[in-house]
Amino acid sequence: MSELRKDPVSGRWVIISVERGKRPSDFAVRAHAKKGGFCAFCSGNEHTTPTEILAFRPDGSKPNTPGWTLRVVPNKFPALRVEGEENRVGDGIFDKMNGIGAHEVIIESPAHNLTLSTMPLKSVEDALLAFHYRISDLKKDKRFKYVLVFKNEGEVAGASLEHTHSQLIALPIVPRLVEEEIEHAKHYYDYKERCIYCDIIHQEIKSGERVISENQDYITLAPFAPRSPFETLILPKRHESSFMPDGKLNLLAQILQRTLRQIDKALDRPPYNMLIHTSPFREETNEYYHWHIEIKPKLTSTAGFEWGSGFYINPTPPEEAAKFMREAKI
Amino acid sequence: MSELRKDPVSGRWVIISVERGKRPSDFAVRAHAKKGGFCAFCSGNEHTTPTEILAFRPDGSKPNTPGWTLRVVPNKFPALRVEGEENRVGDGIFDKMNGIGAHEVIIESPAHNLTLSTMPLKSVEDALLAFHYRISDLKKDKRFKYVLVFKNEGEVAGASLEHTHSQLIALPIVPRLVEEEIEHAKHYYDYKERCIYCDIIHQEIKSGERVISENQDYITLAPFAPRSPFETLILPKRHESSFMPDGKLNLLAQILQRTLRQIDKALDRPPYNMLIHTSPFREETNEYYHWHIEIKPKLTSTAGFEWGSGFYINPTPPEEAAKFMREAKI
Repeated sequence: MSELRKDPVSGRWVIISVERGKRPSDFAVRAHAKKGGFCAFCSGNEHTTPTEILAFRPDGSKPNTPGWTLRVVPNKFPALRVEGEENRVGDGIFDKMNGIGAHEVIIESPAHNLTLSTMPLKSVEDALLAFHYRISDLKKDKRFKYVLVFKNEGEVAGASLEHTHSQLIALPIVPRLVEEEIEHAKHYYDYKERCIYCDIIHQEIKSGERVISENQDYITLAPFAPRSPFETLILPKRHESSFMPDGKLNLLAQILQRTLRQIDKALDRPPYNMLIHTSPFREETNEYYHWHIEIKPKLTSTAGFEWGSGFYINPTPPEEAAKFMREAKI
Repeated sequence: MSELRKDPVSGRWVIISVERGKRPSDFAVRAHAKKGGFCAFCSGNEHTTPTEILAFRPDGSKPNTPGWTLRVVPNKFPALRVEGEENRVGDGIFDKMNGIGAHEVIIESPAHNLTLSTMPLKSVEDALLAFHYRISDLKKDKRFKYVLVFKNEGEVAGASLEHTHSQLIALPIVPRLVEEEIEHAKHYYDYKERCIYCDIIHQEIKSGERVISENQDYITLAPFAPRSPFETLILPKRHESSFMPDGKLNLLAQILQRTLRQIDKALDRPPYNMLIHTSPFREETNEYYHWHIEIKPKLTSTAGFEWGSGFYINPTPPEEAAKFMREAKI
């Protein structure tokens, strides 16, 4: 069982793996992503993953056998575990609780070499649908307050397996960065009676200089103050507080794939992190928060200044990044 | 001139280098730290750096010539520039200001191959003294609210030059992470009428399991909820809100060097980031904040989950990290 611990000064929670602590020697040889050779996520190797939680099987094949087009399985080395109670306790000035949560892997395709940019559009749609199904299911567990869906593409971005996959972690706490966005968005709403994201979208469409892609329902933007080069946001154009949209799934899949292709083309298939920010379960529908997808190509790494200040130095203005991506021939 | 831009949702400021934007192709070939060959920080090459701001020259030699034991020069590629006014302006929903500030480099030794762990103790003392002198000088500039001193040791930790050096950045804004610590520390003080750091130190000394080193005036701790493996804090044992101590500089140099040697030994000279957190200029002396040095060996990298949540997953419990460091034969 891992532990959730709260730093008494910053208020920040961290997940500490108390059960299999990494010793100094474990860091000496960096793990490299498996390339070639055996892959547990490939079709035919279903028995080597934990039992599947969800699968799309258009041919009606049996669970944990080939025939699937998308599969969701528990993470074999979970950061948090489903079993147990929160058990919040204090130790003098310190606070901790059991590391309960869920940690799942969404294998978006049985094909080893496809990515969200290169797979058929239907598979991207299915991935989004699977995220939605899993979030809806995990919401029923009253211990959980939030589900973070994310993707690490490429070894430098943290992927430990090469085969395309996303992950989700259900948490007993609303993550700090989501809380912060909500707090500021609420504050803005109190003042203006409008959603801050809706206002940003309005202004960005008017100026156009940071718009990367657009379709009927969604827009891709380079944010005004990005933390790192080529950081990218995808948002629904109309106000919507929680992922996932009522309909128009194909339009979301379309703009997501298009955006990733623009990134791939402009930056020569960079490693990247992608994640979904949505309203927490306790306030799923509201007027102030607006769900979105964040994509961050991993081009720079944070150093002492960023670590110590929370300030980021970004060497690429978003106006230029947007231009490069708009002009990418995809 | 770079720009400081504020993200309207998170409230986070970023520094955008608008004048020499990095194009996609600049990221394709990663810059590697210069190894061997010419070094601008070595003795004899003083003319290749910007004009020195401060130098310790025990032999009375002239500025910008050999003979120094420590040198402070402006960063040749500064993130922020000293010239100009803040010029805060709005652009619809967005806020920005000119990237004013100071960005300096502290070259702690003329010898190319020494580090804070291996240099004579006197040089470590001098480095701390130079930090203090520069902070005191920059404080006179009323545009600045904070000076962050930091060190990136090793290429993986962000050092672009191999020769030992630290950096400082003077900012027109108190950094977010320092603001957060201060806010929580004030809140705690309002409630308890005690400094939260003093209380932590008291509890840690009593339990002992996360104490790494100690001398008469300072203590090195593995924090209860560290964001990454082997994260380490050095604090004055008695309440002190701002760097730098009245006296006992040798005791601070001693524990700093000892701690870095323990890290070097336990982790085989890892890359690391180091930084100083101190009270901002506007509230230099107070009862609630307690200055400290943070050291973070760069063993893991952040991925989508950390980026999206602000949560950190740490595979090494601090109790184990502290034990490894205590037992390191230095």
